[in-house]
Amino acid sequence: MRVGLYPGSFDPITLGHLDIVGRALGVFDRVVVAVLANSSKTPWLSAAVRVDVIAAAVREAGLPTDRIEVVTFDGLTVDAARAHGATSIVRGLRSASDFDAELQLAQTNRRLAPEVDTVCFITSAEHASIRSSLVREIAALGGDVSSMVPPAAVAALREAGAER
Amino acid sequence: MRVGLYPGSFDPITLGHLDIVGRALGVFDRVVVAVLANSSKTPWLSAAVRVDVIAAAVREAGLPTDRIEVVTFDGLTVDAARAHGATSIVRGLRSASDFDAELQLAQTNRRLAPEVDTVCFITSAEHASIRSSLVREIAALGGDVSSMVPPAAVAALREAGAER
Amino acid sequence: MRVGLYPGSFDPITLGHLDIVGRALGVFDRVVVAVLANSSKTPWLSAAVRVDVIAAAVREAGLPTDRIEVVTFDGLTVDAARAHGATSIVRGLRSASDFDAELQLAQTNRRLAPEVDTVCFITSAEHASIRSSLVREIAALGGDVSSMVPPAAVAALREAGAER
Amino acid sequence: MRVGLYPGSFDPITLGHLDIVGRALGVFDRVVVAVLANSSKTPWLSAAVRVDVIAAAVREAGLPTDRIEVVTFDGLTVDAARAHGATSIVRGLRSASDFDAELQLAQTNRRLAPEVDTVCFITSAEHASIRSSLVREIAALGGDVSSMVPPAAVAALREAGAER
Amino acid sequence: MRVGLYPGSFDPITLGHLDIVGRALGVFDRVVVAVLANSSKTPWLSAAVRVDVIAAAVREAGLPTDRIEVVTFDGLTVDAARAHGATSIVRGLRSASDFDAELQLAQTNRRLAPEVDTVCFITSAEHASIRSSLVREIAALGGDVSSMVPPAAVAALREAGAER
Amino acid sequence: MRVGLYPGSFDPITLGHLDIVGRALGVFDRVVVAVLANSSKTPWLSAAVRVDVIAAAVREAGLPTDRIEVVTFDGLTVDAARAHGATSIVRGLRSASDFDAELQLAQTNRRLAPEVDTVCFITSAEHASIRSSLVREIAALGGDVSSMVPPAAVAALREAGAER
Repeated sequence: MRVGLYPGSFDPITLGHLDIVGRALGVFDRVVVAVLANSSKTPWLSAAVRVDVIAAAVREAGLPTDRIEVVTFDGLTVDAARAHGATSIVRGLRSASDFDAELQLAQTNRRLAPEVDTVCFITSAEHASIRSSLVREIAALGGDVSSMVPPAAVAALREAGAER
Repeated sequence: MRVGLYPGSFDPITLGHLDIVGRALGVFDRVVVAVLANSSKTPWLSAAVRVDVIAAAVREAGLPTDRIEVVTFDGLTVDAARAHGATSIVRGLRSASDFDAELQLAQTNRRLAPEVDTVCFITSAEHASIRSSLVREIAALGGDVSSMVPPAAVAALREAGAER
Repeated sequence: MRVGLYPGSFDPITLGHLDIVGRALGVFDRVVVAVLANSSKTPWLSAAVRVDVIAAAVREAGLPTDRIEVVTFDGLTVDAARAHGATSIVRGLRSASDFDAELQLAQTNRRLAPEVDTVCFITSAEHASIRSSLVREIAALGGDVSSMVPPAAVAALREAGAER
Repeated sequence: MRVGLYPGSFDPITLGHLDIVGRALGVFDRVVVAVLANSSKTPWLSAAVRVDVIAAAVREAGLPTDRIEVVTFDGLTVDAARAHGATSIVRGLRSASDFDAELQLAQTNRRLAPEVDTVCFITSAEHASIRSSLVREIAALGGDVSSMVPPAAVAALREAGAER
Repeated sequence: MRVGLYPGSFDPITLGHLDIVGRALGVFDRVVVAVLANSSKTPWLSAAVRVDVIAAAVREAGLPTDRIEVVTFDGLTVDAARAHGATSIVRGLRSASDFDAELQLAQTNRRLAPEVDTVCFITSAEHASIRSSLVREIAALGGDVSSMVPPAAVAALREAGAER
Repeated sequence: MRVGLYPGSFDPITLGHLDIVGRALGVFDRVVVAVLANSSKTPWLSAAVRVDVIAAAVREAGLPTDRIEVVTFDGLTVDAARAHGATSIVRGLRSASDFDAELQLAQTNRRLAPEVDTVCFITSAEHASIRSSLVREIAALGGDVSSMVPPAAVAALREAGAER
């Protein structure tokens, strides 16, 4: 069984992220979406909320939930991959300016764990410009982000904003 | 009448920004320079000072002040564009590494307001390496920034530095 | 009256090019689509056919034909701009790798004709990956290019292929 | 069974290409290396020689030959993928400047065949600067390419050069 | 005597930085490694510790210590260059995404001190993906960074981590 | 004595190339400008003419001719470097899109001759958009290239054009 680990902050998950989960399912038997919990930056949504939102988004999108697991992790990505039996780290590429940073991560992870390779998928054109940071900024200003994130994330962002 | 909105932090306005204002006047009847007031980052210059510096710089440069308006805004850029009757957002491009970020902004703004397009001008070669953040850093270290920003900005930075 | 000149090989015009013509009409009173006739490379479609295809595509797309002119030119782009009373050269940007080449062209044209500025529009996401060279390659191999070029171009390519 | 098609000119196959074949085997049950035969450019090595060199290189490298097939194709890449039962196109990414071209290809192929996705692997650091075109140039000038291509390719290039 | 100043945060020095010091010694009679002390960001290692680590790393690597000086500075880079009799600023380039930022710095420094030029070396392939920020992140998570930084830095990071 | 070899097609030498020669003289005792004679592409100017134009341009620019040598070469760049006692290859960088190609060349040359390093200078802003290929195109169309190339090159291009 081939398992791919898809790590990220997912604060919140976007339609671009969901697109990558779907593509990864075309290559892996099982995809583990791994939410980075210990980010030094204060997140908008707690790790637990982010996990719930991803799980809801996956259901809403009609993706095969029995082949997707959503977890949190707070150490090295390669350790999370090993812990979940993944032999590949899944990443989405949106633009050339993403590429150099992804290349550094991939080569660094290979140094740390040569047996875990990085597999990249190219985000589809209509989602390539979506970034979680832009989504948060727009939501904070009262803008409509429903064309950028799944319904579950819209609701979570609204609640998070209300508490601020 | 065609109105272009040129949004930015302008902390402070540089000769590169002024160059873009001039170019935009070649295409638009009226250019609204819109100072982002509510940036989460603490600015060097207050929004009010930034507006004054821009207005002075525009006069110093001999640009047609009757076709330029300087305003502040603190919500979405597309809302500022609508509020000022602008059908275009004006952006300056300096380098390939700028491009992907600008493309994301432009495509996001199109999502939010399809009737407002983004029009880009290419900063002239001699100003392409100027960034407000570098200007602030150099000014903070006592360096001479008079070849990078208009005289009004030099004076404002000196005053801001003195207060620190 | 503001006139923008949109130069290119247009061999053939793509949906991405058409998108840029539409955007340019949002800023200019009149857009001159200028087909480069004397390219050193042997074109697939003759300059005359390319002009006809563009004219047909503009009509098919419902763009205001009274504000669009389609011409050929065979010298410097800036001379074509002057000849047609254009004060701006219109360019579409698709990706970061386009940018450096466009910047060189824009700065070179400014050297040759300081009064003619370059105005860039960002191709919409769904058309950003379309290039005429890829379209020709796919058409040559019998692939379906109807989602990349306007109907008039599909027909012209089929005919051109038949003659090869 | 998951099959990945790895298309290219392979004129000649390099150590970077071999590296990608190895990585693809970590994700796919079977990898079809597909040599583009009908390239408009005159190749250094004939398609038949390129196939032989790849087959020899795969054996020399100790890769599992029963999971690798080497074929030629001369139409659309997506048609080759379908013909060989591949649901993924495999590509190696070496640098940011590669990325935009690969993104265009991937999005174009998705247009032509939505059921065939593109999966990218990042070439390892030590092979990232190797390109077949540079290898041919150096070989033509009598330079030593044995650190860039597998032994089988060194021999084939020597022979091809002798015939020139 | 030609002196090159190699400025940076060096928090901590990496094998990539050491590689650049070695290359610079091929062109300059003397290389001054200049540690930026007054960075606004809180460093992991104090400036004094960073200097000690660099000095130790240079000795460990067998580089000619009589031709290398390690200093701290806290003003403009061009002022540090002048103070140490350097006519060149040395920079390492790792990737295209580094380039635009380095170009801005180089052109800005030329504005401030036309007599000080910037000389760039290209980091060797095996070190191109190493960044101090990634090293700190991995060390903080308990990862092994001994393939990315010299032994002296490994020890210093461990100590710094222990104190946190 | 430190010798730098500056290789290129120089068809023709531009003001950007001359700028790099001047910068290289700030670091090297002697600069060998090496004209690639055996390029597969048909040049505009013969190798002999290109050498004469460079020699004239260097004199016109007031550069120290006793520290500059102009030669032709027709093999590997690293062999030319060795033949002329150069320990460094000099390259000018203009833009991020140049960078990846230069990195590949530098890493390939290091493979072929580890003792010859590549040293890069950043072209000054006002010359960064000049490319020999654009210069030839503009000259062919009768455009004025006197702001892009030295006077000696203007004359040579005019003569070359007349013969076409």
